[in-house]
Amino acid sequence: MSGQIRAVIEHVTPEIDAGRFPIKATPGEIISVEADIFADGHDKLATRLLYKHSDDAEWSEVPMVFSVNDRWLASFPVERQGHYLYTIEAWVDHLASWHHEIQLKINDGQHITSELLVGAHHAEGMAGRAEGTDKAFLESTIGLFRDPNRYDEAITTALSPAFTALFSRYPERQHPARYVHELVVEVDRPKAGFSTWYCLFPRSASQELSPAGAPVHGTFRDVEKLLPRLSNMGFDVLYLPPIHPIGTAFRKGKNNSVISQPGEPGVPYGIGSELGGHMTIHPDLGTLDDFKHLVACCADHGMEIAMDLAIQSSPDHPWAKDHPEWFKKRPDGTIQYAENPPKKYQDIYPVYFETEDWRNLWEELRQTLLTWASWGVRMVRVDNPHTKPFSFWEWVIAEVKKEYPDMIFLSEAFTKPKVMQELAKRGFAQSYTYYTWRNSKYELQEYMTELTQSEMKYYFRPNFWPTTHDINPSILQSGHEPQFLIRYFLAATLSSNYGIYGPSFELMEHVPFPGKEEYLNSEKYEIRHWDWNHTNALTWLITTVNRIRKENKALQSTNNLTLCRLDDDALMAYLKVSGDNRLLMIVNMDAYNRRGGHVQVPIWQLGIPDWQQYTVHDLLTDTYYTWRGEWNYVELDPYRLPMHLLRIELNHP
Amino acid sequence: MSGQIRAVIEHVTPEIDAGRFPIKATPGEIISVEADIFADGHDKLATRLLYKHSDDAEWSEVPMVFSVNDRWLASFPVERQGHYLYTIEAWVDHLASWHHEIQLKINDGQHITSELLVGAHHAEGMAGRAEGTDKAFLESTIGLFRDPNRYDEAITTALSPAFTALFSRYPERQHPARYVHELVVEVDRPKAGFSTWYCLFPRSASQELSPAGAPVHGTFRDVEKLLPRLSNMGFDVLYLPPIHPIGTAFRKGKNNSVISQPGEPGVPYGIGSELGGHMTIHPDLGTLDDFKHLVACCADHGMEIAMDLAIQSSPDHPWAKDHPEWFKKRPDGTIQYAENPPKKYQDIYPVYFETEDWRNLWEELRQTLLTWASWGVRMVRVDNPHTKPFSFWEWVIAEVKKEYPDMIFLSEAFTKPKVMQELAKRGFAQSYTYYTWRNSKYELQEYMTELTQSEMKYYFRPNFWPTTHDINPSILQSGHEPQFLIRYFLAATLSSNYGIYGPSFELMEHVPFPGKEEYLNSEKYEIRHWDWNHTNALTWLITTVNRIRKENKALQSTNNLTLCRLDDDALMAYLKVSGDNRLLMIVNMDAYNRRGGHVQVPIWQLGIPDWQQYTVHDLLTDTYYTWRGEWNYVELDPYRLPMHLLRIELNHP
Repeated sequence: MSGQIRAVIEHVTPEIDAGRFPIKATPGEIISVEADIFADGHDKLATRLLYKHSDDAEWSEVPMVFSVNDRWLASFPVERQGHYLYTIEAWVDHLASWHHEIQLKINDGQHITSELLVGAHHAEGMAGRAEGTDKAFLESTIGLFRDPNRYDEAITTALSPAFTALFSRYPERQHPARYVHELVVEVDRPKAGFSTWYCLFPRSASQELSPAGAPVHGTFRDVEKLLPRLSNMGFDVLYLPPIHPIGTAFRKGKNNSVISQPGEPGVPYGIGSELGGHMTIHPDLGTLDDFKHLVACCADHGMEIAMDLAIQSSPDHPWAKDHPEWFKKRPDGTIQYAENPPKKYQDIYPVYFETEDWRNLWEELRQTLLTWASWGVRMVRVDNPHTKPFSFWEWVIAEVKKEYPDMIFLSEAFTKPKVMQELAKRGFAQSYTYYTWRNSKYELQEYMTELTQSEMKYYFRPNFWPTTHDINPSILQSGHEPQFLIRYFLAATLSSNYGIYGPSFELMEHVPFPGKEEYLNSEKYEIRHWDWNHTNALTWLITTVNRIRKENKALQSTNNLTLCRLDDDALMAYLKVSGDNRLLMIVNMDAYNRRGGHVQVPIWQLGIPDWQQYTVHDLLTDTYYTWRGEWNYVELDPYRLPMHLLRIELNHP
Repeated sequence: MSGQIRAVIEHVTPEIDAGRFPIKATPGEIISVEADIFADGHDKLATRLLYKHSDDAEWSEVPMVFSVNDRWLASFPVERQGHYLYTIEAWVDHLASWHHEIQLKINDGQHITSELLVGAHHAEGMAGRAEGTDKAFLESTIGLFRDPNRYDEAITTALSPAFTALFSRYPERQHPARYVHELVVEVDRPKAGFSTWYCLFPRSASQELSPAGAPVHGTFRDVEKLLPRLSNMGFDVLYLPPIHPIGTAFRKGKNNSVISQPGEPGVPYGIGSELGGHMTIHPDLGTLDDFKHLVACCADHGMEIAMDLAIQSSPDHPWAKDHPEWFKKRPDGTIQYAENPPKKYQDIYPVYFETEDWRNLWEELRQTLLTWASWGVRMVRVDNPHTKPFSFWEWVIAEVKKEYPDMIFLSEAFTKPKVMQELAKRGFAQSYTYYTWRNSKYELQEYMTELTQSEMKYYFRPNFWPTTHDINPSILQSGHEPQFLIRYFLAATLSSNYGIYGPSFELMEHVPFPGKEEYLNSEKYEIRHWDWNHTNALTWLITTVNRIRKENKALQSTNNLTLCRLDDDALMAYLKVSGDNRLLMIVNMDAYNRRGGHVQVPIWQLGIPDWQQYTVHDLLTDTYYTWRGEWNYVELDPYRLPMHLLRIELNHP
């Protein structure tokens, strides 16, 4: 490195772990970059943010703007899927320094003939880099600055905006410092940032009953019949738990009983039988062609399928025979079944990632995902990714996205914060969260601050679920309808990505397996028969909110959240803004009592003067209110509707 | 990298700019290291902090301790000067995981014959790595664990501390993850962390006057006569502004007047004449031998010399003739003098670090420092380092320390925070600070928090100066004696490194050059005659505090500071603890009024029960007080003594 380089570039944001991991975005986003940039001495600095798509040959550049305390800012748009790179250059700006110096001297009344000669030298340099009229103009200034008889004219020109505007167009880029890293933005397709998930078990999709009144094993064809309903309700991702053959050895029965009765269907997560494993379809659901037909049918309804990757096998999985080295052995030579001591899960073999044959294991899993992709699947929910090595995920996600850049992976890791963060860093586009257990206003405000204000905002895209097929949370075990409305509404408006565990949630299923946050008679262990034609307050709210989410850009991001003051410990208010779309959500989190209070609207952020009236339009009830100033009164009755979804309409008549 | 590696190590502290810069320490310090460490799954982890002196062939290891939220802690001592390296290893601990598993199963009443066979396998592995009695013991357990007839004995042994203690002694280090960086601690000699500076102009060191009553040019011999006084007052660094020949071209006169009168001595910072430059001694101060004699004489008094490196030249410096390419040229071919537009400094040529000949320039400056070192100098105060490139400082400091590891550089940069921080990162052992302008309790508490609680604590060693020969701060221009006592005391007890601009400060010089924070008749521009035999309240306080600093280890560090609550906006209280040395400083920052209030002693930190009496011993006045509990009353009269320096003595009779 040349000793003549004087600028220093440090503390760039966003930058995850010294550039080790990319940040994430979707097309159309603006990436705001900051850095500490300074040099020795008192010269002016020139700074440039450099960026390009990895397919581009050339860097684009944008000058950075000085903020305060040696902090400089700039931003760039990401328009295409794939990888963008960004970095920074800075150098001592002899043009700007010269210009600053002559201004001070002229103001002091000094004669600056000598400085004009220096200026002529700078103009020569710029002229050498310019073309056309700029070049002609610069060449004319050279003679002018050197002509003592045209001193006043020279001064006028030297100070003119026409001349100084050329400094950044033809910069004197001497000894530029370059930031030590080229940083990466991973740009996923829009659905990575805005998606609405619906989970159902296809085997519970049949609307028929057996002659004896028992549930009938559903098929992909049955699922297709439900698509109009789901699409009308506004869902765009249909997530299916595993659809592969289920093992029979140690098969679990109803309510997770250790011994199943003959005819029980088993647990979809006990993957693999003599029929095949992760690349095979359960015959009771249909054929591979039936599955592909479902994929196509989903597309017709503006939806797509998310498959479920659970890397484990039943004792009957072909892996157990063909690749026993992919499993841990017990001293007696048998394969070690899953344990969470003192509990045993003899129906499941966990995969042993420390195997010496890890390369073939990884390759098999890559092939599995590529096979699914070849069926038309572009979304994968990964079951318990936190029990498989991080380096595997980083590799396999990158490998699959090389061939299928549209692929979106959702991490189902309910575990320690740093492990969940690490999975997101390694490539998961979306992540399950603690939302399911964040019930109070205080908890949710803290959690939203962490998600949208900490470094996580750059790489961790939350996906909020009020319930899942594994979690029947305490707060909903009452079955109290306003509570379901509240929990649904918070998920769908706090996070741009959310999902529901479909029929169960719609019907406000709530009876727990005694003492647990699980469902009684869970369809994980048996086929359920749901009423697929019901409507209720919750289905109305889901349909309405999903329509509003599609129509209002402010609900299609998560990081655009601003928490608003509202001095009641059960009333939570938050603003989301995207361009001129401004939504204010107010939720009464007390599902049993009417609550009222004054909400502070951040009118300073919205550019509303204190004296000006504005309209808030409740998009749920199509009601209009006229407000003025920061503080406005709201009151919500959970037995009517425990929330407002207010669009702030500045130009409403 | 093997796909079998499962542990992840991130967010190590201390680590400056992703390992780009070392942290700093002095021998005897303990370096506390933290990291996020985790793996997939639920296995136990083994973690090791690795460290070594750069001269050591082998790494030392210390197990890390789990704290909370996947954070692990360990520490290591730095004992020798030079560079220490540290990094971290972690791996899935199959020994500990196995042990945890059998405990759970035994507690559950399970029979664990199969698990004992696994244990025998682990014991075999450990035995292979062990020796002596450990090996014999491990070998005995192998048979025991495999013998179904000795099941109970096997369980007892498997759970015994004697067995489990061997896990960390003979770890099963399979697929360890290694942190991506080896981080560096730069260990300087103790004086880098604890030093007491005294600045004087040797030309003002004479105690004689001319027959006409005018000051006489002092010499190094005159300085030697002052050493007993300075040493008795407790100073250990004697800092001399430049001692080189002074140019005559455009020489400045008294009070910085542009034209000097014949016989005026010039400014020591106008370095260089036909006699020589930075490697030459001003003949009026003495010979090079005289200077070396002074260096030796200082050592006899427990002091050492700090020279002043000002990289600039007078127009008469040999550089201007021999190396005109090291300076910027004006269009008329003359060398560009210093400017701070619209001001001109025609007596100074700034060095042009962007010169194409920068390699020779850097080498000349390296030679300058090596020459000074060859004279016995091991401390250098650098004048305005922030106007020379950072990369130059990083290079030259490292180069000089390669040959003279004892060398300590003090950065005299009063400039923007990030520039001051960068200079410290690049190698300056100590740095001037904003202390000189931090007057109120609020300002000082904020500033001390920044210095001792932010990342700066790892690399930025503050050196506090109440005044300097360049700065006569507004707060002292009153000449009010209590104000001088306060400003002195804060500097000497907040920071383990501090200095005074000697005779001027001792005598409470305060008359400003009108309208400026500079001294009238500054000895930068003229020879001054000081009363070198005076004593006053300030000299008493200096002498007393310097003795206390030497006797109390708590005052020999800066980062050991705890601010204490005291609900009066002028009473500031702070605790410093080192081992069982506990000092509580209380200062009345209102120099004009008596103030009283209750100070909250952090007895929880000191291990003092709420009910226990303890003694506080004012080391300034040798007074004892008996206190109890957190809150105790203090009252300070600035006209008596505006501070307490209390030693908390738990076992005092």
